[in-house]
Amino acid sequence: MNVDGTPYRTIWFDESDETVRIIDQTRLPHHFKILELLSLEDACYAIKNMQVRGAPLIGAAAAFGMYLALREGFTLKEAFPQLMVTRPTAVNLRWALEKVVASAGDLPEHEQRIAAALATAQSICDDDVSNCTAIGKHGVSLIMDIALEKSGPVHILTHCNAGWLATVDRGTALAPLYEAVENGIEVHVWVDETRPRNQGASLTAWELNRQGIPHTVISDNAGGHLMQNGMVDICLVGSDRTTFKGNVCNKIGTYLKALAAHDNNVPFYAAVPFSSIDWASDDVPIEARDPEEITHIRGLNTQGMPDTVRLTPEGSPAHNVAFDITPARLVTGIITEKGICQANEESLAELKNL
Amino acid sequence: MNVDGTPYRTIWFDESDETVRIIDQTRLPHHFKILELLSLEDACYAIKNMQVRGAPLIGAAAAFGMYLALREGFTLKEAFPQLMVTRPTAVNLRWALEKVVASAGDLPEHEQRIAAALATAQSICDDDVSNCTAIGKHGVSLIMDIALEKSGPVHILTHCNAGWLATVDRGTALAPLYEAVENGIEVHVWVDETRPRNQGASLTAWELNRQGIPHTVISDNAGGHLMQNGMVDICLVGSDRTTFKGNVCNKIGTYLKALAAHDNNVPFYAAVPFSSIDWASDDVPIEARDPEEITHIRGLNTQGMPDTVRLTPEGSPAHNVAFDITPARLVTGIITEKGICQANEESLAELKNL
Repeated sequence: MNVDGTPYRTIWFDESDETVRIIDQTRLPHHFKILELLSLEDACYAIKNMQVRGAPLIGAAAAFGMYLALREGFTLKEAFPQLMVTRPTAVNLRWALEKVVASAGDLPEHEQRIAAALATAQSICDDDVSNCTAIGKHGVSLIMDIALEKSGPVHILTHCNAGWLATVDRGTALAPLYEAVENGIEVHVWVDETRPRNQGASLTAWELNRQGIPHTVISDNAGGHLMQNGMVDICLVGSDRTTFKGNVCNKIGTYLKALAAHDNNVPFYAAVPFSSIDWASDDVPIEARDPEEITHIRGLNTQGMPDTVRLTPEGSPAHNVAFDITPARLVTGIITEKGICQANEESLAELKNL
Repeated sequence: MNVDGTPYRTIWFDESDETVRIIDQTRLPHHFKILELLSLEDACYAIKNMQVRGAPLIGAAAAFGMYLALREGFTLKEAFPQLMVTRPTAVNLRWALEKVVASAGDLPEHEQRIAAALATAQSICDDDVSNCTAIGKHGVSLIMDIALEKSGPVHILTHCNAGWLATVDRGTALAPLYEAVENGIEVHVWVDETRPRNQGASLTAWELNRQGIPHTVISDNAGGHLMQNGMVDICLVGSDRTTFKGNVCNKIGTYLKALAAHDNNVPFYAAVPFSSIDWASDDVPIEARDPEEITHIRGLNTQGMPDTVRLTPEGSPAHNVAFDITPARLVTGIITEKGICQANEESLAELKNL
């Protein structure tokens, strides 16, 4: 998407100097900074520390990590487990690593493997962009249907960031929204701040801001009240892993919004590329992250400098679970690149076999 | 309760120098500071800016505000509306102001009115302490019943601060917990941080810390996941205003926790002194506060100094609604100073008429 008039992806390979570059998402929304990934270690660090995040982008970054590892002289077998442990929940991570192994693993020459890994990483990126675009084109019908039935903007609530920053480009949950805006539909987005990492307040707000799309940041606590008062027309969220049964694992707190949507007859959709569906298992490992993400928070201080402040008293421990699972029964539907389906095994399988 | 060995109330009248003093709750958890309220203006400022907060404590502070106003030479009629507009949601505010008017309004001499207002403010405080103690004694049975049926601590989830800091002493939602601990029952408290003002992370964590009660701070997003995984035995919350129909208005986000409790068969109780029940109306005015409470957050910076950091990008607006309403159907029961009842009109009225 455009940042101040220049089109960007969140990760790309610069042919001119053969360098992988990313937007450092830990600096947003206050600073827009491009980082170079030069090694396997850089790639692992970037994923683990959420310089890149969002299931589709994690997959793309992991594939580039395999390429960088080969370029340093590591084998795929050495790189695979190091990348695999960076984040446990997003199923795209394994999916992308396996794609690189499938394309490059059996090639006889190391140089061939490097070239194949790079080509796979690049095609994962290109596929992600076209899948996200397709998700947008399918999902926009939901927004359009609401727009036809009401006056004023369609109010969309989203949790965390499932916009273009969570993907290579275009986004998952926000792709239908961008599509709607490009089709002249008036929208307004309620942006859950999404504690503890505040991906809503920092990333979703930033990307909507850059695109000039009306939005309002709210506390994670507010969505239920807004839905009770008819102020939300539809909830659109992403997913880090959706199981073949239609259970949607996404950023912690998603389940609470799904409950409120269900209680108030607000449609609740997850936008899910096929690469983030786990066709093998209904068990999802839930990542626990550093409690310091709860006890401390980062922002821009009164001098305009990035700073971290402590929120809790010394001696009060914190627990930081990063994801929860929204049971399929609370999900109105799943938007994929192949179309929209119900959140159940039959409906997902049907779409898969299209 | 004890702070480093010294017993404190949150507000008190010091006979020695005839001064009203409060604990400044905006400085917690990092600094424990006592403030003097010397005027009507001080009292209004303290309530509006949440140096004192929590429905019962707002009531007590408002009563002292009437006393201070009289002492300055204002009439009760002049002071009433100024105090009334400080916070719209807590019904205790009006209740306390009317109590002062009833006791002092018809007295012929100004000096008599001053004395009566002070006596009323003091009796509101004493009554609050005994009501909260009674809430604790009734509510402890719920915790005890759970303790008898399981091994290990009883896991209690609470939202916002309804501890002794929200009252004159002892607390509402946390009173049964203190009672349980004093009766040797092992407990552990999940403390919702409670954005945007973080009363959980700053006040509840602080007060549990001071009492040596095991607790863990979590993001507001986490409670649903914990309940899905059997990690919460009971939810205990306070209320800023409960209507005669049993609808519980409390800190924004309470409704989401009640939904999750209902979805996972976790008992959900509101602890409610009679002074916070609205017997006249089922409509609750919901306070909207400064959006800066969403866009910025206060904490202790790396130099150990209080500082405020900006969380959202420039140009992203925020909406800050302070309370929501949990419908009676999601409330397992209401704990009052007269006993525990169901969240409905009949059951509440029955208790009222005891």
